[in-house]
Amino acid sequence: MPLTKFDAGASPRTVPKAAAIPPSPWKKKGERRNERELKREAVLRAAAALFNEKGFHATSLDEVAERLYVTKPTVYRYVKSKEEILFECVRLGIETLHAAVESVGSSGGSALEKLMAAIRQYAAIVTMDFGMCVIRVGEDPLPPESRRKLRRLKRLIDHEFRGLIAQGIEEGVIAPCDPKMAAFILGGALSWVGRWYRPDGPLTSEEIAQHCIAILMNGLSTREKAVARPERRPGKRASGNHRTPA
Amino acid sequence: MPLTKFDAGASPRTVPKAAAIPPSPWKKKGERRNERELKREAVLRAAAALFNEKGFHATSLDEVAERLYVTKPTVYRYVKSKEEILFECVRLGIETLHAAVESVGSSGGSALEKLMAAIRQYAAIVTMDFGMCVIRVGEDPLPPESRRKLRRLKRLIDHEFRGLIAQGIEEGVIAPCDPKMAAFILGGALSWVGRWYRPDGPLTSEEIAQHCIAILMNGLSTREKAVARPERRPGKRASGNHRTPA
Repeated sequence: MPLTKFDAGASPRTVPKAAAIPPSPWKKKGERRNERELKREAVLRAAAALFNEKGFHATSLDEVAERLYVTKPTVYRYVKSKEEILFECVRLGIETLHAAVESVGSSGGSALEKLMAAIRQYAAIVTMDFGMCVIRVGEDPLPPESRRKLRRLKRLIDHEFRGLIAQGIEEGVIAPCDPKMAAFILGGALSWVGRWYRPDGPLTSEEIAQHCIAILMNGLSTREKAVARPERRPGKRASGNHRTPA
Repeated sequence: MPLTKFDAGASPRTVPKAAAIPPSPWKKKGERRNERELKREAVLRAAAALFNEKGFHATSLDEVAERLYVTKPTVYRYVKSKEEILFECVRLGIETLHAAVESVGSSGGSALEKLMAAIRQYAAIVTMDFGMCVIRVGEDPLPPESRRKLRRLKRLIDHEFRGLIAQGIEEGVIAPCDPKMAAFILGGALSWVGRWYRPDGPLTSEEIAQHCIAILMNGLSTREKAVARPERRPGKRASGNHRTPA
């Protein structure tokens, strides 16, 4: 009986080493969690791409499943509903935007360098699935509580931009202006990229960012100070009552 | 018999004059059409306001009716469906934007004056019901054919802006740039106003337009030509394959 023989007379060389134990067909706990997260992210990413192409309401979970070569019940193992998917896509997009702008803000460098880096990051992220989903779909189709949560997150991005602009004014590299209005104008021009950008278009997101930086920093006019800057109205808080978009 | 007597012996003074005929409780044909159009527009306007506040999908025709102190069947006398309402709201918004920018474009004046007037008009219109509906809701919830029609109309606005920018470059008042990219950046900054504007906010649409003009024309930077302008890539048509947003 080979087993007995093996048990009895195995030389040290024939004792299987730990590394040689055939791998378990089951995954370790940490690996399982990791794989689950990867698959969940794949579901979210496929959905974001479809939402961006066709719109949220026109996209079905069947199509999401189809794009991943799985069935709808498989998709439901990772997410509860289409609403949950959209919430997560927009949340991930906003968090990516915020993390990028924040890390630029806390990096060394002049305010001008930081602002240009933030513009470059923002333009790049809104051309990708989750970032684009923030702009093309956004939180509007979601219930009020989810909308509120996502808008709160969006405000953080806006505040980063305002901070960079205010810092630039202090350093004398940004012309005195209302940082809130400037951040809205910047945010609008950059967010719009997510609306019109197409991966098969002639420009890369980096090239688009270069155009944005040149026009927003230098202005359209050839003349310096072509237009008088509006006064900030005294007694009214400019940070008062506007809604913060993306 | 008074009738006979009247017929026989009426003096010219007692013959009723045309003007004295009691007015018909029914309206003349032209008046009826006019009133119908006014009522239809009131339905569209109430719906646009609700779409802008709550989103398209969250708005019911019952709420539209309620806002007009009528019942839903009354609303249905003027429109066939919520989709038809949205199509008309967005169409009216785009047409108002286009008419304003076009009329500015064909007015006298330098390219710079025209561009600033167009910015002022655009910013004002996206703070009003139909213009705001173009930005906040847009054509996305509509079926493909309607979406195509509305996007075709939107492109006309974009072309007006590109034309004004190209004219400005020719006149030497706008710095050489890709008019398409400049129009997208301008369009983004201005359209975004429709997203964050609130009537109870601290600034009027005219004041917001002034900020937009100052920042977009002068640029954010204090230094002249702070940033190198990107080269236009040869051999690639910049007017090629981007989708035109609002």
